[in-house]
Amino acid sequence: MANPSLLILPGDGIGPEVMAQVTRIIDWFGEKRDLAFDVEHDLVGGAAYDKHGTPLHDDTMARALEVDAVLLGAVGGPKYDDLDFSVKPERGLLRLRKEMDLFSNLRPAQCFDALADFSSLKKDIVAGLDIMIVRELTSGVYFGEPRGIFEEGNERVGINTQRYTESEIERVARSAFELARRRGNKVCSMEKANVMESGILWREVTQRVRDAEYPDVELSHMYADNGAMQLVRAPKQFDVIVTDNLFGDILSDCAAMLTGSLGMLPSASLGAPNADGRPKALYEPVHGSAPDIAGQGKANPIACILSFAMALRYSFDQGEEAARLEKAVEQALADGARTPDLMGPEGGTPITTEEMGNAILKAL
Amino acid sequence: MANPSLLILPGDGIGPEVMAQVTRIIDWFGEKRDLAFDVEHDLVGGAAYDKHGTPLHDDTMARALEVDAVLLGAVGGPKYDDLDFSVKPERGLLRLRKEMDLFSNLRPAQCFDALADFSSLKKDIVAGLDIMIVRELTSGVYFGEPRGIFEEGNERVGINTQRYTESEIERVARSAFELARRRGNKVCSMEKANVMESGILWREVTQRVRDAEYPDVELSHMYADNGAMQLVRAPKQFDVIVTDNLFGDILSDCAAMLTGSLGMLPSASLGAPNADGRPKALYEPVHGSAPDIAGQGKANPIACILSFAMALRYSFDQGEEAARLEKAVEQALADGARTPDLMGPEGGTPITTEEMGNAILKAL
Ligand SMILES: CC(C)[C@H](C(=O)O)[C@@H](O)C(=O)O
Ligand SMILES: CC(C)[C@H](C(=O)O)[C@@H](O)C(=O)O
Repeated sequence: MANPSLLILPGDGIGPEVMAQVTRIIDWFGEKRDLAFDVEHDLVGGAAYDKHGTPLHDDTMARALEVDAVLLGAVGGPKYDDLDFSVKPERGLLRLRKEMDLFSNLRPAQCFDALADFSSLKKDIVAGLDIMIVRELTSGVYFGEPRGIFEEGNERVGINTQRYTESEIERVARSAFELARRRGNKVCSMEKANVMESGILWREVTQRVRDAEYPDVELSHMYADNGAMQLVRAPKQFDVIVTDNLFGDILSDCAAMLTGSLGMLPSASLGAPNADGRPKALYEPVHGSAPDIAGQGKANPIACILSFAMALRYSFDQGEEAARLEKAVEQALADGARTPDLMGPEGGTPITTEEMGNAILKAL
Repeated sequence: MANPSLLILPGDGIGPEVMAQVTRIIDWFGEKRDLAFDVEHDLVGGAAYDKHGTPLHDDTMARALEVDAVLLGAVGGPKYDDLDFSVKPERGLLRLRKEMDLFSNLRPAQCFDALADFSSLKKDIVAGLDIMIVRELTSGVYFGEPRGIFEEGNERVGINTQRYTESEIERVARSAFELARRRGNKVCSMEKANVMESGILWREVTQRVRDAEYPDVELSHMYADNGAMQLVRAPKQFDVIVTDNLFGDILSDCAAMLTGSLGMLPSASLGAPNADGRPKALYEPVHGSAPDIAGQGKANPIACILSFAMALRYSFDQGEEAARLEKAVEQALADGARTPDLMGPEGGTPITTEEMGNAILKAL
């Protein structure tokens, strides 16, 4: 049988450095665990724009649709700030999400024991925190039409459209309920049904899916503004949160920052299962391209490495190998391996991106 | 000369209880400071719906447009959850905002010294925090058309429209720059210009207004998701934040919760100045109607009382009297007055809503 295939898109900023460590980990699994992947590398974001004048070449898009999973580093940077909207680095990522139909974005907000002191929140509020945010990723205001900047009278108007169909809400709701069953069995859905009709439909459909298909899962509804408050006040009240593309963008970043472990958090973006049962899938760290520290060996590769662990679990049904990798990361941290972002109040000497890769490989 | 006029709309939940204390304070200013107001009371939200079948009667709307300032308690509650969207309590508040054209919503996020321990954030992160969030309040996805739930093929689709004209952005930007000049002279504007065209226009127009009219004020731009992270990570980096209606809803609630002083935070919603120089204005606490504790004397009236202080300052040019009232609140807290929401780790005996009113009157 052919090896499973991986398309690696390091992207911009710290993307290439952190991905270099992931590549070493992938090689290790091929050599030591008889789990070899066919790996290809390609460009996305500003890096693709620099070469091709587009943030995602059609050939890259086509390969993304063929491989078993895509691993992405990060996109964007100040160099590209003044580019036209249509060729901004972000458009490459958004095109991947849309054309791969990756409607379910899983963003764990987890507080690592070794790092509980790093949060700006009090330790007892975040220690042991383990939330999963399920963000709808292919619709809503990110993709709705009409959109653009138009002339109106003698001024311009900027327009975007928030838009959700019942079936779009149903499928992301299902993925949240499925996940909840494997966790705390509790879902909180967030919208602004008090001011937006799209939120009313969201609330109604999530409730209907729950009542008809997941009566064993507890479902509550919360306005997104209150959701932001509750995340700050008492995040441990949540198990799975399901929300739309834009609220999910903001709330998941807020939740990620609560943990104090931003450089540690992976994400998975999943589509519908293929004939072989594998969903189309893209894995990427929650953090961005961090242009301010790019190329200096300061970046923490763990979020990207844990994104590969998510790939092992969700795309390749290798839950045990995923757990092995996750344990190795914890071990490296317990052994004191710290990139600069993990330097806590107690101080110490930070290690480089590559040394963190070494520490994890050693723990493996 | 006639007394200035105030329309008081206590609303739902804890609204009436907290407003009762404000009324006592208003009376005190009339008696002791020769600052008498002509005060009328009326209904809004669920309370108005119960009586009139609409969350804001036309007569109330008309009076709101005539008086010098409106004071509002809070609207909404589970009793009204199943009402049709068009008569939900929130529609009453939204109609006031829209027809009074209150485009600039000032939401201070301030951490009171006596309460710095109450935040879920570490004390050094929030002690002394003093941010002003300026939220656009009459446009964006709250009011954009088309909106609604429509049939499409054989399913329904929920639609809302994010929409900003240049002049809408200009006027709220100006109000943020004006405020910044009286504070730290620094504005951070938040949007999602990387994924939304309305955000691109927002960024362009705020920058243009700054360059042409406020070159002395420092302006930076941040994506709203990063804004949520930065608020959690290091909120003191901000002075004034300006953002749109929906981002403002979420980010200001997040910021409010950071302070640990949610029951303490007032807000002002201002329109364009009238002929006499007074802006149309509505003042209300940031907190909601808290139906779970309504009618039990547990509510903290301070947010609503400080909203009246904002009215003294912004509508009646009584900055000194506003400061007097704010000092009295601080004094009451320093003297140990604590409603149940202000019970910190150190414990103690909470007082009632009315007793908090007494404590503040005593301090006055
Ligand atoms: C880079 C950007 C387009 C993206 C988004 O807004 O979705 C990012 O913030 C994210 O959360 O993945
Ligand atoms: C009550 C509701 C309509 C309102 C809003 O969404 O604007 C509230 O959350 C607020 O922030 O004032």
